Amino acid sequence: MDFSDALTWRYATKKMNGEAVPQEKVNQILEAIRLAPTSMGIQPFVVYTITDQDLKDRILPIANNQSQVVEGSHLLIFAAWDELTDERINDYIKLTATERKLDETVLEPMKKTLKRIGSKTSDEVFDWAARQTYIALGFAMAAAAINQVDSTPMEGFNAAELDQLLNLREKGLRSVTLLPLGYRDVENDWLAPMPKVRKPEDQLFLQPEAVLK
Amino acid sequence: MDFSDALTWRYATKKMNGEAVPQEKVNQILEAIRLAPTSMGIQPFVVYTITDQDLKDRILPIANNQSQVVEGSHLLIFAAWDELTDERINDYIKLTATERKLDETVLEPMKKTLKRIGSKTSDEVFDWAARQTYIALGFAMAAAAINQVDSTPMEGFNAAELDQLLNLREKGLRSVTLLPLGYRDVENDWLAPMPKVRKPEDQLFLQPEAVLK
Repeated sequence: MDFSDALTWRYATKKMNGEAVPQEKVNQILEAIRLAPTSMGIQPFVVYTITDQDLKDRILPIANNQSQVVEGSHLLIFAAWDELTDERINDYIKLTATERKLDETVLEPMKKTLKRIGSKTSDEVFDWAARQTYIALGFAMAAAAINQVDSTPMEGFNAAELDQLLNLREKGLRSVTLLPLGYRDVENDWLAPMPKVRKPEDQLFLQPEAVLK
Repeated sequence: MDFSDALTWRYATKKMNGEAVPQEKVNQILEAIRLAPTSMGIQPFVVYTITDQDLKDRILPIANNQSQVVEGSHLLIFAAWDELTDERINDYIKLTATERKLDETVLEPMKKTLKRIGSKTSDEVFDWAARQTYIALGFAMAAAAINQVDSTPMEGFNAAELDQLLNLREKGLRSVTLLPLGYRDVENDWLAPMPKVRKPEDQLFLQPEAVLK
């Protein structure tokens, strides 16, 4: 199945059948997340992988009782940084210097840019970090589709409650999106037989002529 | 080349060689953008494809003179909605009803949710729409990598100036990211020989044990 076919095959599965996604496929999805590009390369987020049924049960009501939370075998929770501390910056500078065999002084301009972001408000840092998280979310969904694994991106949950349950705030994190991984229950998912709705090309892709007129 | 290899191969190319990306490959990248999931499925953004050299020359200084803007054959500009008008909502409800052969009344709950988003401030609507754009940006970069096309995601540009040049604000749009498409100039790109820097798995992926402690 080529990439475009995989992306056509995927849809925001509304009902999953409880079958477990093999660890090897989960690992490929996580590796796509790890490889996703981010602003300055700093990867300002973490991903929790929840397989524990009790914990998924506790998250279910926080996620408006969307059943995929418990029907998927793996629930990914993307949580973005809401502060860019000196420690986080220094860790990243050190990692980059080590991996690229560079002297840290060469990375001063990068450090300066990061410190400028770090001086912003918590909300601003979070907005910046959350956007990066969405690139990784995109990579995860694409990797899942290629592996014929279903996934459902979810923004509809009570972030404050989830942050509290997982103690995210005290770690300088806030939850951004959920992504259950599993397999579609074709018989019982009302969305499964529905055609995918997408705008025609000419509404989504505009030409420079249109731009400059 | 499998997906993970393609994502390892890609990097934020700093210097491109001017070679043109074939239209067929550009179309595959655009199709990935079109297939990207978005909040409620509404696709709250447009993508401009700039190939005109004069226009790219005018954008170059707005993008901090990052040379890929003019060295890539196609410059994609992602611009997100900064207002969710009744017209936009109604167009989408109509499209969904048509594609899925549904009566519009069935879509009232969706319409209500969209109207709630539409009642927020322009900045809030834009933040919501911009995040969706990053999923599509992720899909575009993944599709480019699979097609062995280089791309460079750019946030470092003067959004206000670009919005003015392209008359975006009067269309209810604001620029979010740039994505030049082209081919790496391996000889002259300082980043080309550098190893990719990514955090080890244990720093990026956390287990529920860690969560609940």
